[in-house]
This record gives sequence, C-alpha cells and structure tokens, in this order.
Amino acid sequence: MKRTERTGTIIKILTDSPNKLFSLSYFTKMFNAAKSTISEDIAICKKIVENMSDGEIITVAGAAGGVKYIPKISNDAAKEFQKYLSDKFNDPSRVLTGGFLFTSDIMFDPYVTKQAAKIFATKFMDLNVDYVVTIETKGIALALMVAEALNKSLVVMRREGKISEGSTLSINYISGSSGKIQKMSVSKKSLVPGTKAIIIDDFMRGGGSAGGMAEILSELDIETVGIGVLIATKEPEKKLVNNYYPVLYLDNHNDPDKKIHVYPNQDLF
Amino acid sequence: MKRTERTGTIIKILTDSPNKLFSLSYFTKMFNAAKSTISEDIAICKKIVENMSDGEIITVAGAAGGVKYIPKISNDAAKEFQKYLSDKFNDPSRVLTGGFLFTSDIMFDPYVTKQAAKIFATKFMDLNVDYVVTIETKGIALALMVAEALNKSLVVMRREGKISEGSTLSINYISGSSGKIQKMSVSKKSLVPGTKAIIIDDFMRGGGSAGGMAEILSELDIETVGIGVLIATKEPEKKLVNNYYPVLYLDNHNDPDKKIHVYPNQDLF
Repeated sequence: MKRTERTGTIIKILTDSPNKLFSLSYFTKMFNAAKSTISEDIAICKKIVENMSDGEIITVAGAAGGVKYIPKISNDAAKEFQKYLSDKFNDPSRVLTGGFLFTSDIMFDPYVTKQAAKIFATKFMDLNVDYVVTIETKGIALALMVAEALNKSLVVMRREGKISEGSTLSINYISGSSGKIQKMSVSKKSLVPGTKAIIIDDFMRGGGSAGGMAEILSELDIETVGIGVLIATKEPEKKLVNNYYPVLYLDNHNDPDKKIHVYPNQDLF
Repeated sequence: MKRTERTGTIIKILTDSPNKLFSLSYFTKMFNAAKSTISEDIAICKKIVENMSDGEIITVAGAAGGVKYIPKISNDAAKEFQKYLSDKFNDPSRVLTGGFLFTSDIMFDPYVTKQAAKIFATKFMDLNVDYVVTIETKGIALALMVAEALNKSLVVMRREGKISEGSTLSINYISGSSGKIQKMSVSKKSLVPGTKAIIIDDFMRGGGSAGGMAEILSELDIETVGIGVLIATKEPEKKLVNNYYPVLYLDNHNDPDKKIHVYPNQDLF
C-alpha cells in the first residue's frame, strides 16, 4: 500500500472514533509496515487534520500509548456556527401560542447536534469526565454527540421510573420553567460512585433540571464538573446552578409582540 | 498541497457528512487545483474506502452532481457486530426482577448505536426516505445515528403532547408489552405530507409502538416503508406490524430460571 492510501485509511479510522486510542502496532500490523513508516504517516495525518482546523491527532507516549483524534472546533468555526444556529432559531414561524419556541426539529438535527457537541467537547475535554448526563427528551441527541466526541458513556435520566431500569434513585424538584414539581430518576446500574460527570441539556430557564441532575449525581458521590446547554434564557439571570455554559442565549421569549431574539454567547472559550 | 494531503482531507470531509453531496468545484476551489487532478484524487479516495469495506464513495453525474460518502457495513462486519452485541445483552447481570432486561446503557452507547445504524443505513438506503421516525426514549440514540448516516431528518414522537410542540396529532394505542393503553403524539410542524419514512426503535415485542407510529404517519399521508429495531422478541411471532427488521432476537425473556437468550437475526441482508 502506498503512503497516500495508508494516510487516508488512518485518518478515517482515527476520526471515526474520536478520543479512542490506537496503538502504533495496530497500524504496523494492518499495513504490514515498519514503525518508522507508520510514524511518518501519522505525522502527515496530523498535518492534514491541523490544516483543516477541525480537531487534532495527538500521540500519547509510553507502553500503553498510541494515537488518537480529538475533535475540536476553532473559534472562527464556532462563531460561524453560532450565527447559523441563531438565524435558524430566530425564524418567526417558530413562535407558538403562548410565546413558546418550536425547537424539536433543531434539537434532533444530526448536523446541529454534532457541531454543537464539538463546542462542548472543546470546552470540557480537559476535565476528564466519566459520564455525559442528560434528562429525557430533547437534550438526548446533543448529549449523545458529546458522549461520542469525548468517547464517554451517556446516561439519560428519566421523568418516571421505568420497570426496565432496575433500582433507581429519584428526586422531586421544582421546574424553573413551569414552577411545577417534577420528578426525575436514574438507574443505579448506570453510574459508578466516585466519578465525574458533565450535564448536557437542550434548554435552561431556571436551572431546575440541571440542578436536579446535579443533586442526584451528588447523592451517588458523582461530581458535576460542568453544565452545557444549547440555549439558556437571559432571564432569570440568577439560575439554580452557577457553572452553566450556553451556546446561545434567548431574550424576550414572552414578548407580547411575539418577537424572539436568540443570540450567540460571546464568551464561548 | 500534495496528493496525500488532498486525499486525506477529502476523505475526512466526505466521511464526516455521510450522504451529503459535494460538488467537484467545492474541492477544486479548496485546493486551487484542476478538475482532472481532483478527479484522480477522488478515484484514490474511492479505492481507500473500498479497501476498508466500510461504505463507498460514489460519483453522481450531471450539473447538480458531485461525490458523496455512503456508509455501508459489510456482511462480515455486521455478523461480527451482531455477535459482539448478543454477548453484551446475554450478560446474566442484566436480568432484572420480573425477567426484564436492563438495556439502557447499550441503547445510549455511541459506538453500539453508530454500528447498528450502519446496518439500517445499508438496508434502507435505496428506499429514499424523507424521515427517520422514533418514539421517546430509548430508541432516540439509534434513530439519530440512522438519520445521520442517511442524512435525513429525525422526528421523535412523544408520549405526551408538550406545549412546545405546537399543534400535534395524537393517537391512543395498546402497548404490545404491557397491554395498557398508551398515547403518542407528534408535532404537525415536524412532518410534510406525501412523503416516506422509516421507523427505528430499540425494542419490539408486540409491535404496538411501531404500529401506532405507522398509523399516525399514515394519517399525515406519510408512507412507512421500513421498520428497524435493535431487538425483537421471538414471541409473539405474529406482531401488529409485518415488515420489521431486527438486528437481534430475544428468546425466553421471562424464563423462570432467568436465563436470557439474545441471538443474531440471520437474515440480515
């Protein structure tokens, strides 16, 4: 196999499995090539990915070392994406009776969730979490893409305990959006105590859901080290959680003239 | 830029966006290269992907033409994945009180759902559907990955009508699993009549959920042309829908000695 073919193959393998470590010998065996040859191939792959400003390939030294692809979004690409996404949300036909915003199509859009996930992966990469946690339903796509980018497990909390979840830990909490008491529960089988998690969700108003998730996690001795949401409302400015990180802000949601205003979070990185 | 760098870049761009068409001029501009050069590059990319048995790059002729990457799984890779996944499900510690199977961690696993999605993409590719449809909650990850592979919209039906969904179409149906009456609803904004859809879900026992989804879609003049599930139970053999397609079968789920037996669907393609 020629260098061109080897590097194309290596790039596909690494970028198909973000944050998964592949040993050098995995590639020397695959191509029946010397270590020095593969090392040169990888140096070229690094340069290719670097030129694309879409993450990086890094080498981990040592006996258990190897190479892996880390998805990252550049500042410019992130800003461009924020603009694209704001425009999508600011479409007046999205405003429903009562001033609610129709967002389901966007929240389940594979392209949108994958791009947004790159922003959270870039932000939270160095925290070395064990879990990405969300609550059903509309944050699941985004959280899955974040879990894929970080190569971590996704845990989805449920609104009601399900018989197929085994023994669960539940709490009641007050929704910041509706002011109503809501319940959330998580299977104890899903989580190992003494670990770290980030919380990912589609939308935050008062922070009740995220606060509830952090509380359940804390009960299981799991530290919440970051919270990422696609959209956070500007008001109330004081939410039930502090360290949250939105891609976009929403203003004037309940404006009587039905204007909505979604705009980028300027302090992205 | 050298050929090696161009082909590596093209492979990353194409495989990052499955089933998305890129014009030749997109690449000639990007690399400031002649059409003949890019055509040769693409021929090499095709060969690389073909050698990996992991989909193919195809050329679409004509003024609106270009190249795109189609994810496909080979028969051998699919069988290997079925074996891997069966073993995962057959772990005795997954059996819960009442003979239920704990599956949440697998159903939200990015790797599992992406691999299984390749099987459905391979199976349903030629049907040219407009939508991938599922119902909350545990099929969402799988359905999202299928939607990404096919580059189609994902629509998630809800158990309850939500205020943020706008006007919805709802039905009540009898769950094949519990025998209880359940409700499902979908936002009318999410779907355009006169189109085609496939239904993707995590689990099928009686086929009530899939049948309900097909019924709602039919009300909206949307044809269901295929149904894919990760696991279908062997019994009842006669389900409420016919054209379903499981990756795995589940036998003896409620065996009193708590043995479970998950095994591959041998008629995969």
